[in-house]
Order: sequence, then structure tokens, then C-alpha cells
Amino acid sequence: MSDGVRLAELAQWVGGKVQGDPDRRIRAVARLEDAGPEDLSFLTNARYKPAVASSRAGAILVGDTADLSGRDLLVAPDPYFALAEILDRFYPTPRPAPGISADARIDDTAQLGSEVAVAPFAVIGRKVKLGDRVSVGAGSVIGDGSSVGAGTVVMPRVVLYPGTEVGDRCILHAGVVLGADGFGFATSRGRHRKMPQLGRVVIEDDVEIGANTTIDRGTLGETRIGRGTKIDDQVMVAHGVEIGPDSLLAAQSGIAGSTRIGARFTVAGQSGAAGHLSIGDGVVVAAKSAVFADVASGAFVAGIPAVDHRAWKRSIALVKMLPELRSQLRELEERLQTLLPPTGGKA
Amino acid sequence: MSDGVRLAELAQWVGGKVQGDPDRRIRAVARLEDAGPEDLSFLTNARYKPAVASSRAGAILVGDTADLSGRDLLVAPDPYFALAEILDRFYPTPRPAPGISADARIDDTAQLGSEVAVAPFAVIGRKVKLGDRVSVGAGSVIGDGSSVGAGTVVMPRVVLYPGTEVGDRCILHAGVVLGADGFGFATSRGRHRKMPQLGRVVIEDDVEIGANTTIDRGTLGETRIGRGTKIDDQVMVAHGVEIGPDSLLAAQSGIAGSTRIGARFTVAGQSGAAGHLSIGDGVVVAAKSAVFADVASGAFVAGIPAVDHRAWKRSIALVKMLPELRSQLRELEERLQTLLPPTGGKA
Amino acid sequence: MSDGVRLAELAQWVGGKVQGDPDRRIRAVARLEDAGPEDLSFLTNARYKPAVASSRAGAILVGDTADLSGRDLLVAPDPYFALAEILDRFYPTPRPAPGISADARIDDTAQLGSEVAVAPFAVIGRKVKLGDRVSVGAGSVIGDGSSVGAGTVVMPRVVLYPGTEVGDRCILHAGVVLGADGFGFATSRGRHRKMPQLGRVVIEDDVEIGANTTIDRGTLGETRIGRGTKIDDQVMVAHGVEIGPDSLLAAQSGIAGSTRIGARFTVAGQSGAAGHLSIGDGVVVAAKSAVFADVASGAFVAGIPAVDHRAWKRSIALVKMLPELRSQLRELEERLQTLLPPTGGKA
Repeated sequence: MSDGVRLAELAQWVGGKVQGDPDRRIRAVARLEDAGPEDLSFLTNARYKPAVASSRAGAILVGDTADLSGRDLLVAPDPYFALAEILDRFYPTPRPAPGISADARIDDTAQLGSEVAVAPFAVIGRKVKLGDRVSVGAGSVIGDGSSVGAGTVVMPRVVLYPGTEVGDRCILHAGVVLGADGFGFATSRGRHRKMPQLGRVVIEDDVEIGANTTIDRGTLGETRIGRGTKIDDQVMVAHGVEIGPDSLLAAQSGIAGSTRIGARFTVAGQSGAAGHLSIGDGVVVAAKSAVFADVASGAFVAGIPAVDHRAWKRSIALVKMLPELRSQLRELEERLQTLLPPTGGKA
Repeated sequence: MSDGVRLAELAQWVGGKVQGDPDRRIRAVARLEDAGPEDLSFLTNARYKPAVASSRAGAILVGDTADLSGRDLLVAPDPYFALAEILDRFYPTPRPAPGISADARIDDTAQLGSEVAVAPFAVIGRKVKLGDRVSVGAGSVIGDGSSVGAGTVVMPRVVLYPGTEVGDRCILHAGVVLGADGFGFATSRGRHRKMPQLGRVVIEDDVEIGANTTIDRGTLGETRIGRGTKIDDQVMVAHGVEIGPDSLLAAQSGIAGSTRIGARFTVAGQSGAAGHLSIGDGVVVAAKSAVFADVASGAFVAGIPAVDHRAWKRSIALVKMLPELRSQLRELEERLQTLLPPTGGKA
Repeated sequence: MSDGVRLAELAQWVGGKVQGDPDRRIRAVARLEDAGPEDLSFLTNARYKPAVASSRAGAILVGDTADLSGRDLLVAPDPYFALAEILDRFYPTPRPAPGISADARIDDTAQLGSEVAVAPFAVIGRKVKLGDRVSVGAGSVIGDGSSVGAGTVVMPRVVLYPGTEVGDRCILHAGVVLGADGFGFATSRGRHRKMPQLGRVVIEDDVEIGANTTIDRGTLGETRIGRGTKIDDQVMVAHGVEIGPDSLLAAQSGIAGSTRIGARFTVAGQSGAAGHLSIGDGVVVAAKSAVFADVASGAFVAGIPAVDHRAWKRSIALVKMLPELRSQLRELEERLQTLLPPTGGKA
């Protein structure tokens, strides 16, 4: 990209159009406050509109052009999506070079596809299958009988317990643990007896899992993460949970055991769902909320316990008004007092 | 188990009785939706009763027999406990074969019991003691002067800071960190000076600790987890905390520094307790709650801040009723208005 | 310290004064319940005052002397700070002996300062720079192009993704992950496309980061933790966040993407802040709270959503009073009823 790319060409990449100079050359992509005259910057969140005026960016990727006259613009219908496309082209993700470190320990019975990379101090167990172009980071442990699909990247220090199945084109970030025992105990006379955890974890294709996230194996049967689902850091998915495809789980959220969730689920940060629930398709859970009951498809819930988000907003507003409501009540009482003394001994 | 086990024999294992065919042969245990005619399934949560009708299970382990006529049943007084027993007999947990990997680094001064297993890339520090049949997973680090009791399983990538003591028959899941420095700082004129963290972590016998859980060392003295306590994934126990025996800490819960908790404590997911508190025996904390004050033995608390769970339920219900209460208040005002105009300048 | 230190000398260390016997010899520091006659104990939290009477401590470090007559006291203006000073002198933190393990893998292009320690199974990538006296623990991975400043301690099993910058005198506890990809996806027609995460993490000098904490890289630009900031275990700092100097982030707290926070920020346990917010200097967030809007400098906020902490306390108190308010409302209605029957069809 040493000569840069013409703004008109960028527009072609993303199906957008140029407003201003189509021949402006772009050499890099940068945030509004960091960008210089050879950089493309972007306005994908209206909150940052005031930063445009002072930005030195050569051109700006936007969704609409209102109030930005005098600047060279790349206008795209979905500018955030367009930004992903442009970044991918400017900065292709480097993949580890294929090759097996002499310092990795790979069981003789493991099957490795072509162009596999295994870093030092990784341990690949018995009968493990690694697909083509799989990369296993330093110190990661792939337990016996696990499989990892083609193109999947396992970052350093990931642990897959035995029998875990990971699909194609997944990304497992550092510190992820898949397949640890679920938290199941049978309690009798105050003592807790471990319920054997005999199931496994299945991660479908195109799933990304954030750093230090943990997904436990089912007691019997599977814990399953649907295709295309993206999971942030420090998320906890308990034993026997099923999460549908194309879902988003933000950081520090947690799903308790055996809960089953449909497609396109979105849960914001630090929220959770109790166990043994049924949650439909397209459900959205706001941040810092707790789902304690089944949720129908399409619902947007918030609060502890989570309710329809409009009801939650109304409750929040009314709780704020409580001092006022109390004053009104007192005033009413006083007015009534002047008219009608209370009955009984209280007076 | 190739010939299977007679249902009558299963009943003997768990002190239950058969209703139906005592000679039915069982070859495996499976969930209601997965089970076939040679499988035992189970109904340990009433929520799943509707799934019994469509289950192809050969026999079902239940607590009582109501509405299940026509099926072969194994009736046990505590079916969840019986399930644990049966699973253990059908599927004994494999233990790593004893043996010290040539790729582990074990200090000369470490003392290892009999039948110890140490996986590749584990590091065993100076004067560490590992009891008989201890297993240390790949990449785990046992710090100087730590001890691990007989039969304890340390999964891959666990870290014990120096001086940590772990009892017998414990299970430490992948990513557990025991003995990191507590979060203690002396602040003077806006700068934070590290308080040395000189204590240690003591895990008593029969404790299980979930993946990526962290338990910090005491500043001085111990952080102690009582015998038989079970801790889920991503739990945080801060410096100087003491938790009594037979407790249950669910995922993503946290206990702040120096809080002391009695026996049979139960805390549900994503809940926490502030520091320097005293919490009695048998206390239960509901999910997504926060304990900000001492709690007496036997209490069941919920909410932020946590209060008696019935009071919490009442508050939740009343907050839901706030729109109605406000309407009633308005109506009262209007009725009073017709009778008695307000005093003063407001009218 | 075999002969111990005179109490008068301890007082000199910390700018305090002795009340009682200045010649009493102190050989160790211990908690009130553990201390014996040759130990210094301390009273830095008024909650523990009752434990003084029964303590066998030879002397007690205190902030004021009220009600403690008859005991040898070391009186310091800031006793908690004095305790840190005394502990540091009595128990200097041992540092790993310099030296590079033959079992570490260090790229030829890495630059190591003097007296560096690298433990077994650590991996040091291409063009990494380790300052003087840096210590890298067992199994840690320092990604390509990262730098770690002088005197920084990297505990076992830490992962720095490529390009991470860590300042001088930092402490990174076990399981920390710095620089994993931020959680950014462009969603189109229900599918999530990964937003490339091209920025990096910068940790300034004198920062401590607790076990299993994760700090993600910026999408573009930096995620930055200010000088002297201290972060507890299992904290999540998302992509593009900036946190000012001298802040404190307690366990299991989380800051969502692109939020910018001033100096001396304090967030208590299990609290969070949403993304794209602006939070001023000196802001305090109470435990189990969620910041959903910008916060001005100096504010102390609590609740979900977080509001001024006094407003939050008032709301909590009024919610507790709701049963009473409802009773008052009912009583008013009844009294009004005797006077004035309701209008319309309801009667």
C-alpha cells in the first residue's frame, strides 16, 4: 500500500460512493483524533461527530453526509461493515507460519492436516484431529480425542478437555477453557457428591471465543455453541447449555446449566441467565441484567429480574419519582386530615 | 458393561426399588431425549416431566412414580444422588497413568508420593510435596514450598503460587490460580503503595475448584476454603477470606477481602459479598445479589443490597405495581380536589 | 531480624511515636488473633477494635490511642500506610534469581536487559524487548514486538499478544491476557463479520494487574492503563478503553469498549461501565453498579443504572418503605370512601 489507494477504489471495495476528490490517495486507516491527510478515518457512531471538525483525516468514511460539507467523504450504506472490509484489505491478518515446533508434544495417534502450525510447549493428545491450516498456540493443550476444524486459530494457553469438538474457522483466544466439568453435585445430609460430567463441548463453525472464557461440558450430552456465534472475554457457559447460531455474548456474561437459547441471541456485559430456561430466537438481554424465567422469541429484556425493557425503564423512572410520590401522599393525608379526622385510636 | 446390568441390580446399588421389569438390561445412561431402549434415563427435575412421554428410554430413574404408569422405573428416594452413584459405576473416571514426563521440570528438593503423574511442561518448585496418586496436568506450575494432598487432580495450566496448601482428593480445573497477591494498597496523597501480601491459601480436603477461578493469598494469615466445598468457574475469593465446609459457590460469584463465612454457604451465580463481613452457617445468597452487611446463620437473602429473600420478592412485586400506585394516588387527588380545593398558592 | 527491632526504631521507620515501652523488641508482624508477645499487630480498621482486648500482641500499630491504655502502641498518622512500610522492611519480596532457563524459547531477535530471569517453558517472540531485571514466569508467552519495562514481574502463564507495551515496575499476575482481540463485529443481515483488531495495549509504569484479568487491544489505536493504576483479579477492560493514572479497579469489574476515564478512578467489585462513555477524574463507582452514562469528575455513583450514591441510598430506602406507602394509600382511600363515594361506574 506504499502508494496508497484512490478513494474511488475504496468506494468500489465497499459498494459506496465518493463525495469530494475521488483521486485522493489513502495510505492507512486511523481514528479521527489520530488521522492525518493520507489517512481514511470513519464516523460509525454519531457520538463522535464533534470530533470530525478537528480531525486532520484526508477522507472520512460515513453513512450519510449531513453537515460534513467541505470534506472528502466515502459514503457507504453500512459504514461499520465497510470499515471491516477496508481494514481487512489494508491489514490482512498474519497467520502463524505452518510448522510443528520441536518443543511441542504430539501424540503418535494424532492426525494433523496440511499446513498445520503447532507452537512450542503445546500438547496434542491421543487421537486428536487437527484440520488443515489449524494453528495451535504456545502452551495450549488439546485433550485426547478432541478435534479442531480447518482454519481454526487456537491462541496460546488454551485448554481443550478430552473429547471437545471445535468447528472450522474458529478463533479461541488465550486462556479459554473448553470442556471442564460442569458444576453438578448431589447433596445428601449436607455433603456434596460430585455428579460425573460425561458429556462434551461442541463449538460449531465460525465461532470466536474471548480470552479466559470457560465453557463446561454437559453432564450427559453436549454443551453446544451455534455457528457464527461470537463470545467475548470472561464469559461463562455452563454444562448442557445450547446457544443458537449468530449470537453475541458480551464480556462477563454467564449462562447457567441446561438453558437452551435460540438463534441471534444477544446478551450485553455482566448479564446472566439462570439454569433450565428456554429462551427463544432473537432475544436481547440488556447489560447487568438477570434472566430468571423463560423468554419468548423477539423479546428485549432488562433488569433483575429481567422484564420487558420498557417496563424496566418505567420502573426505574418511577423509583426515581418515589420521593415525589411520598410527598404527594403526605400532602393528601394532611388535606384529608383537615376535612376528616382519622377513625379509631390512632388520632 | 457389554451385557448390561439388570434393573434390579441397579436398584440394589442405590437402595431403590424397581417398578416394572426387574430383568430389563441397561447398557448406558442417557438424557430423556437421547436415550434408547437399552438406556436408563432419569427424571430429577420436574421441569422435564413432559419429555418422559416421548422418551424412548428403556427405564427411567425417578423419585416418585406418579403419572408414569406403563414404564419401567427405578424408584429411588433421592434420584439425583442415585444418578451420581450409577454414573460413577457405569463410567469410572479415568485417571492419568502414573509417570513423570521427561518434559516436566521438577526441582530436586521436591518430594513426590507414589503413583504420581506429572504431565509435560509442568513445573514443580523447590520443597514442593505431592501426595500419593497426585496428578499434575500439562503446563501447571506448583510454586516453591506448596503441598498437594493425596489423590488430588491438578488439571492443565493451573498455577499455585509459593506456599499454597491443597488437601486430599481435591480437583483443580484448568486455569485456576491459587495464591496470587491480594488487592491491598495503602493510599497516600493519591498514590497507591502495595501492601505486601505475605499470607497463603489453604484448600482443605475434597474441594473442587472450577476453571479460571482465582483465590488470593492473605495479606498476613490465610485464605481458607473449608473441606468439601465446591467452587464453580470464574469465582473470585479475595485475600483473607474464610469459607466454611460443604459450601457451594456458583460461577462468577465473588467474595471480597477478609470476609468470614460459616459452613454450608450457598451463593448463586454472579453474586458477591463485600469485604470484612461475618456470614453465619447455612446462609443462601440468591443469584445476581450483593451482600453488603453481616448475615445471620440460616438466612436466605437476595437483591442489591441483599435482604431477606421474601422482602426482596415483595419489593420487586411492589416496584412492578408502581404505575398502579401512582394512578391510585392521582385518582385520590382528583377526588379530594372535587371536595376540597388545595390550600395556599398552588391552586 | 533474629534479635528483633526495638519499637522505637519501628516508629522512626514510619514517622510515628511510641506509647509505652520503646525498648520492646518486635520480631514479626501478625494479625491480632495470631500475634504473640514478640509480634507487632495492627488496628487499621475500626471494625476489629474488639479483637484488641484478647490479642496477645506485644505491640499494636494504631492511628489513635483512644481506649487502648495499658498496651504498648506504635502510633502513626496513617497506620495502614505505615504497615505497608514495616512489612516491606521485615519481609522484603524475594525476586527470582536472574538467569535464562534452558527450557525457555527466546527468539534470536529479542533484546534482553541485564539480570533478566526467564523461567522454563516461557516463550519470548521476535523483536521483544525485556528491560533490566525483568522476570518472566513459567509458561508465559511474550508476543512478537512486545516490550516489558525494567523491573517488571511477569508471573507464570501470562500472555502478551504481539505488540503489547508494558512499563517499568509493573506486576502481571498469573493468567493475565493483554492484547486479545476486542469484541467488535459488523452485523449485516444477521451475520457477524469480524472487525479487525489492529491496535495494541499499553500499560504504563507501576501498574499491577490481578490474576486472570483480560485487557483487549484497541480496534485502531490503543487501550491504555495509566501510571500507578492497580487492577484486581478477573477484571475486563475492553478495546480502546483509556484509564487514567492512580486508579483502582476491584475484582470482576468491567469497562466496555472505547470508554475514557480520568485519573484516580475507583470502581468496586462486580461493577461495570458501558462503552463509549466519558468518565471524569476522581470518580468512584460503588460495588455491583452499572454506569450507563457519562459521569462528571468527582462524582460518587451507585446502582443500576448508577446515579449519585445519595440518590441511590434514598431510592433503596423508599423501595423498602413501599409496603408502608401502599398501606397509607389504602387507608387514605378508605377514609375518603366514607366521605365521598367514587364517581362513575366503579362504585
